[in-house]
Amino acid sequence: MINKLTAKIRKTNAPIVVGLDPMMKYVPGHISRAAFAEYGETLEGAAQAIWQYNKGIVDAIYDLVPAVKPQIAMYEQFGIPGLRTFKRTVDYCKEKGLVVIGDVKRGDIGSTSEAYAVGHLGKVQVGSKFYYGFDEDFVTVNPYLGSDGVKPFLKVCAQEQKGIFVLVKTSNPSSGELQDRLVRAAARAGKDGSEDPAGSADKPLYEIVGEQVAAWGEECMPEEGSYSYVGAVVGATYPEQGRILRKIMPKAFILVPGYGAQGGKGADLVHFFNEDGLGAIVNSSRGIIAAYQQEQYARFGEEGYGEAAREAVIAMREDIAAALAAR
Amino acid sequence: MINKLTAKIRKTNAPIVVGLDPMMKYVPGHISRAAFAEYGETLEGAAQAIWQYNKGIVDAIYDLVPAVKPQIAMYEQFGIPGLRTFKRTVDYCKEKGLVVIGDVKRGDIGSTSEAYAVGHLGKVQVGSKFYYGFDEDFVTVNPYLGSDGVKPFLKVCAQEQKGIFVLVKTSNPSSGELQDRLVRAAARAGKDGSEDPAGSADKPLYEIVGEQVAAWGEECMPEEGSYSYVGAVVGATYPEQGRILRKIMPKAFILVPGYGAQGGKGADLVHFFNEDGLGAIVNSSRGIIAAYQQEQYARFGEEGYGEAAREAVIAMREDIAAALAAR
Repeated sequence: MINKLTAKIRKTNAPIVVGLDPMMKYVPGHISRAAFAEYGETLEGAAQAIWQYNKGIVDAIYDLVPAVKPQIAMYEQFGIPGLRTFKRTVDYCKEKGLVVIGDVKRGDIGSTSEAYAVGHLGKVQVGSKFYYGFDEDFVTVNPYLGSDGVKPFLKVCAQEQKGIFVLVKTSNPSSGELQDRLVRAAARAGKDGSEDPAGSADKPLYEIVGEQVAAWGEECMPEEGSYSYVGAVVGATYPEQGRILRKIMPKAFILVPGYGAQGGKGADLVHFFNEDGLGAIVNSSRGIIAAYQQEQYARFGEEGYGEAAREAVIAMREDIAAALAAR
Repeated sequence: MINKLTAKIRKTNAPIVVGLDPMMKYVPGHISRAAFAEYGETLEGAAQAIWQYNKGIVDAIYDLVPAVKPQIAMYEQFGIPGLRTFKRTVDYCKEKGLVVIGDVKRGDIGSTSEAYAVGHLGKVQVGSKFYYGFDEDFVTVNPYLGSDGVKPFLKVCAQEQKGIFVLVKTSNPSSGELQDRLVRAAARAGKDGSEDPAGSADKPLYEIVGEQVAAWGEECMPEEGSYSYVGAVVGATYPEQGRILRKIMPKAFILVPGYGAQGGKGADLVHFFNEDGLGAIVNSSRGIIAAYQQEQYARFGEEGYGEAAREAVIAMREDIAAALAAR
């Protein structure tokens, strides 16, 4: 699946993932009115409105981008009907040939992490049969619980040739509260038994997680020289950290949130890419799916929200290409 | 809800939460056969089997314990039908008067964390109406993304008088990979401009998260002197860390996993409690729900899995009471 992602990025020339993070306030009035007329102002009505909205976005952009990233929280808030729309969206995007990154940020320990891995990427056993649960191509994973929490995902990734993106340095303002903490290196004994100062270089926590991502990736590689099944999330809002992490994890694809609405710009993105122009995929959510609400794309109107999204994707593709050409 | 939990612990004299983490291998044969006969070996069949199994456990233990903790991963792996059983289990346990802790380990940023908070603890808006999604009483939250990820939960907790348990020091063997890292304290300038050595005491990451839990709790307290809405997860397998964290977070309830099957013993638990005998609630999952598979309770047989669970709860209550009496 990482090879499919790489091939699709090459083909579209767009290292872009469209975040399908629908909020009711983004859904055009004609869509929510129709859904509420049919299902009432209910969880089912909201789920139907979001499904129709998503379908319009996907139909407008599927040929331009390699991947989409539905954010499960935005569906989970509407309970079971919302999660049914999540699943329907995943399935529809795959039908359209898109790579689907489930932004689920799961992570637990042992058999519990295995259940998440199985439910989102793999197959669960029921008696003598096996079934896919949500069946995304990639998911995002939270590393706070350590290797116990991540390794069950690696096992399923190897079986299914799918992948994960581990949260390393997230795009939000307070991400540094834990992730930037300077961690004492384990003291190493020098030859004469004294402490070796070379062993005591402190580093921020995100670098330690980045090193883990690189190590997990070594265990989980489709073939020699390719990108690994283990990627990382590093926010566009932290380009300097992106530069460092790019070097620490040369074989990891970096999923870069925070472009556009959160403040990241094209020029900030260049550090996340390798020399081959690959190795990063940049997410934009409301900048694309709610483009019609921006002044720049207001001419499309509510009814033209899909076309507005398409224009926004093209503008983003050009912004990134220009930044990469200028580096 | 924290006051309800405290009152129920006092009444039952059992600071115990039963982890409803069903695995198909725990479900007695007569239950899965009946479910598969009706629904086939399908996701629906598995979801039905788990529902019937859960109901038998809850019916057998609801008068003995204050709370249950369904682990959502074990349901999510069966896709939508599994999540329907999760919701049905939450609702049934609440009908039985139990406090429900959704072990969901969610955590994201800004509006996304808000969506999780709304979906699991609060109400979501659809047009002019409001609906509860999953409607647990408490959920577990992952702190890796920082305050941005936790604060939306605090807002909903204050509105709904519900609570969260933040992962601080988890029970698994590799939890130390990040959580135990020694973090450099921010250097503080002394009066003469030199570095103040008092400012440079290093501490493990879990202590920093514990301090955050205490601070978030200060903002989110039902009344003066009570326990706060912000609790913490600290594994029974780390009693020394439990002792330290108990002091750092005096007003936080500690949810303690890792008792029983993971190796934690009654004597290890005493450090997690305050002098008032409160402040901690100990989880056991398979040690109770699959008690009938242990030699000690084999006499109950598969059909008697509920009674076996009841006996296991009583034994656990006595183990904890004896340990607390001996301290």
